[in-house]
Amino acid sequence: MTHPFDLAILGAGSAGYACALRAAQLGLRVALFDDTPVGGTCLHRGCIPAKAWLQAAKVRSTVAKADAFGIGATLGDTDVPALRRYVDGVIKPLHKGLAGLIAARGITLVQERGIVSVDDGGPGVEVGDARYQARAVVVATGARPVTLGLPVDGERVLTSDHALRLDALPASAIVLGGGVIGVEIASLWTDLGVAVTLVEAMDRLLPGEEPAHSSILKAELISRGIDVRLGATLTDVEVGDGVTAKVGAAGVSADVLLVAVGRRPATESLGLAEAGASLSDSGHVVVDENLQTSVRGVFAAGDVVAGPQLAHRGYAHGLFLAERIAQLQGRHPGRPTLPRDRDIPRITYSSPQLASVGLTAEQAGPDAEVVDYPLSGNGRSRIQKAPGVRDSGRVRLVREPGGAIVGVHLIGEEVGELIGEGALLVGWQATPEDVAGIVHAHPTLGESLAEANWALSGRPLHMHG
Amino acid sequence: MTHPFDLAILGAGSAGYACALRAAQLGLRVALFDDTPVGGTCLHRGCIPAKAWLQAAKVRSTVAKADAFGIGATLGDTDVPALRRYVDGVIKPLHKGLAGLIAARGITLVQERGIVSVDDGGPGVEVGDARYQARAVVVATGARPVTLGLPVDGERVLTSDHALRLDALPASAIVLGGGVIGVEIASLWTDLGVAVTLVEAMDRLLPGEEPAHSSILKAELISRGIDVRLGATLTDVEVGDGVTAKVGAAGVSADVLLVAVGRRPATESLGLAEAGASLSDSGHVVVDENLQTSVRGVFAAGDVVAGPQLAHRGYAHGLFLAERIAQLQGRHPGRPTLPRDRDIPRITYSSPQLASVGLTAEQAGPDAEVVDYPLSGNGRSRIQKAPGVRDSGRVRLVREPGGAIVGVHLIGEEVGELIGEGALLVGWQATPEDVAGIVHAHPTLGESLAEANWALSGRPLHMHG
Repeated sequence: MTHPFDLAILGAGSAGYACALRAAQLGLRVALFDDTPVGGTCLHRGCIPAKAWLQAAKVRSTVAKADAFGIGATLGDTDVPALRRYVDGVIKPLHKGLAGLIAARGITLVQERGIVSVDDGGPGVEVGDARYQARAVVVATGARPVTLGLPVDGERVLTSDHALRLDALPASAIVLGGGVIGVEIASLWTDLGVAVTLVEAMDRLLPGEEPAHSSILKAELISRGIDVRLGATLTDVEVGDGVTAKVGAAGVSADVLLVAVGRRPATESLGLAEAGASLSDSGHVVVDENLQTSVRGVFAAGDVVAGPQLAHRGYAHGLFLAERIAQLQGRHPGRPTLPRDRDIPRITYSSPQLASVGLTAEQAGPDAEVVDYPLSGNGRSRIQKAPGVRDSGRVRLVREPGGAIVGVHLIGEEVGELIGEGALLVGWQATPEDVAGIVHAHPTLGESLAEANWALSGRPLHMHG
Repeated sequence: MTHPFDLAILGAGSAGYACALRAAQLGLRVALFDDTPVGGTCLHRGCIPAKAWLQAAKVRSTVAKADAFGIGATLGDTDVPALRRYVDGVIKPLHKGLAGLIAARGITLVQERGIVSVDDGGPGVEVGDARYQARAVVVATGARPVTLGLPVDGERVLTSDHALRLDALPASAIVLGGGVIGVEIASLWTDLGVAVTLVEAMDRLLPGEEPAHSSILKAELISRGIDVRLGATLTDVEVGDGVTAKVGAAGVSADVLLVAVGRRPATESLGLAEAGASLSDSGHVVVDENLQTSVRGVFAAGDVVAGPQLAHRGYAHGLFLAERIAQLQGRHPGRPTLPRDRDIPRITYSSPQLASVGLTAEQAGPDAEVVDYPLSGNGRSRIQKAPGVRDSGRVRLVREPGGAIVGVHLIGEEVGELIGEGALLVGWQATPEDVAGIVHAHPTLGESLAEANWALSGRPLHMHG
């Protein structure tokens, strides 16, 4: 029988659309299904609006600190509708560009929710009564906020979806959850003048990061006025004119409660179980090393696959699957490689920023060599800081004994972009000696990577030791 | 005869102090001579204060644009003494840290001007009547502004030394010279409200950069209100209450004139010719591939050696010479490698920033493959931009036909830090295929490097083609 499509993709977010674009480039006939606008969570409800809100918050904190740089400035009110227009003004052209690219590559975009169906002819996607037969199906439906049964109403009890679409700022907020989303929103709300209480059940913020960096972050957030409660659970939530609750025995109240306790894979009612695909207890799609589910020809990509929930992991999954499926269909020569989760960089865009790739010191084992370089010795970092502000930032490098760099961990203002270099070091299994001869420009934050490298190879330059 | 020192270094700037620190680390007895504070031009009169002024200027432009992000802000007066305190507050701890490091490593610091002298016992340094015998001498005395015979008085006619120590801002300025220094100061003065006329004799700004990027920069500076005059010479300079001059036939006048037409090596009256060391017509010290002068045991490093005038090139020279000299003296095993000038990254910290490493498209030859990726497609770049502002930034990658990446060229807001990754790509002779599997974090500016890489390997993702 003939297949109208070589590939059908459920979900037009980072993983799904990247897969579609690359597959079309390789000559596959692609159908892409989503009942929400292309770009998915990242573009419309996640990374992009969050980072735009963070940018506006940074503008406000820059105005507030301008005097310290000799620049006279008076802070006025925050015009949230104008801020929202700026945020939407970032999203809109990116969305338009993406839609144009999808059209230009000849991808069939079906703006409906599809479900997986497998019949004797193989896999396919059903939308209502219509069936789209395809030689391969990719499930890339992403994830949704966990709400823990709390009475989310979008007014007093919010998820990040609501927080990034506010038309007015609360005067005070309880942020439940000290992961990336909770920390980023706590940070940006604080810079926008909101009084924030940050509640995390674990004993530290950002549990995926180096514990020492979690501690530095905690101290920085506290110094900015955030009430940080670790090892604490929120109970007795009551919603009225505001929100009241208990943290341990103590009462807390605020205008709003943000629930940022994680995101679970959006894999319900997709026909997966009926098609024979295994799901884990957490709702993730179970896949093999090539991202194939337990059903031949049905694959999964992005947040529906257990692991770090990151848009760029979604891209990487999508690109890999496009090439893998094209290879299986004889349209692509080489066997593609799926990046390991540990080699995928991660950034938290709070103030300060955290960025890391690879293994923590603990994960690398007791014999690992570890060097910390303080950003207080870095000229660029000093320039960025308002006078009199202590610089708690630092670079941690982790290497195998005498061997390759396996972890790069950064905390400090604006360190996020440095993780591009970090990912190269870890991905290419570079040794400090490989890097020692590469010249870094002065004065850049990136010099701190060079300094840490030199220290790791036993020849620190701008550092005692 | 015994040598009291293994190494004597003239000049405690970037090249000289880096050489001293590394040599001491390798066990050499080191004497370091300078009659100005350790850290040299870069720390006290160059990179660091310039970038601090640029930071203050960026704070002002952020305040001025805050409304566009929804942040109410009113610009007040610039308090130049406070700005200067901030700049000095950046320099002071870096200076203190460096001085502490020099002391801690047991380096003999002589705060006098030394000159080279060679006698039967070999090279040495003289300070007045005192002679410091040394087994090797390194000349690292840096460079000084060229003034073209203009009546520099520090009041109306300035060099960058004066511009970075102003106690009050001029209302208007003529900047003579469209190289890095002229462009950076024209950019920061404009952001601080100074009306700037920028005059360059060549037909483009930043002649070392990609010509297309020079054009983008020119358009951006003009759009910010700078009066850019290219292919123009300044004549008939007259100084009174202000400065008047002619650019071609047209008269220009301003409160001050900044002379930023280059820096010449500070090699006069150093005893070099007397010692038998060759100098070029431009005053540069002539050296071999190991930075040795025509006199055995006398070396040169940094800006006194013809090539790009960059602090980090000075570091690289200094580190190389420390290891080379230690090797010659049997104190260091491996033969060190001197980085090639073309592999040294360069950044212009104007708004927008330019950053590059390696060969331009033209230098790479007619068969080179070139890809341009526009930053307008990059989410992070859009977030940084005030709404409605066109994003003219871009990434240019240059590779040998089917081979390694030999040039990375960037223009755009905040692109400077990306050149760390660029230097790795060029220094390691990476191919786009090597990079294709490395995951970049989203949303970062660094993704633009990944996109350009993908395009270069024939598989653009977020890009038509």
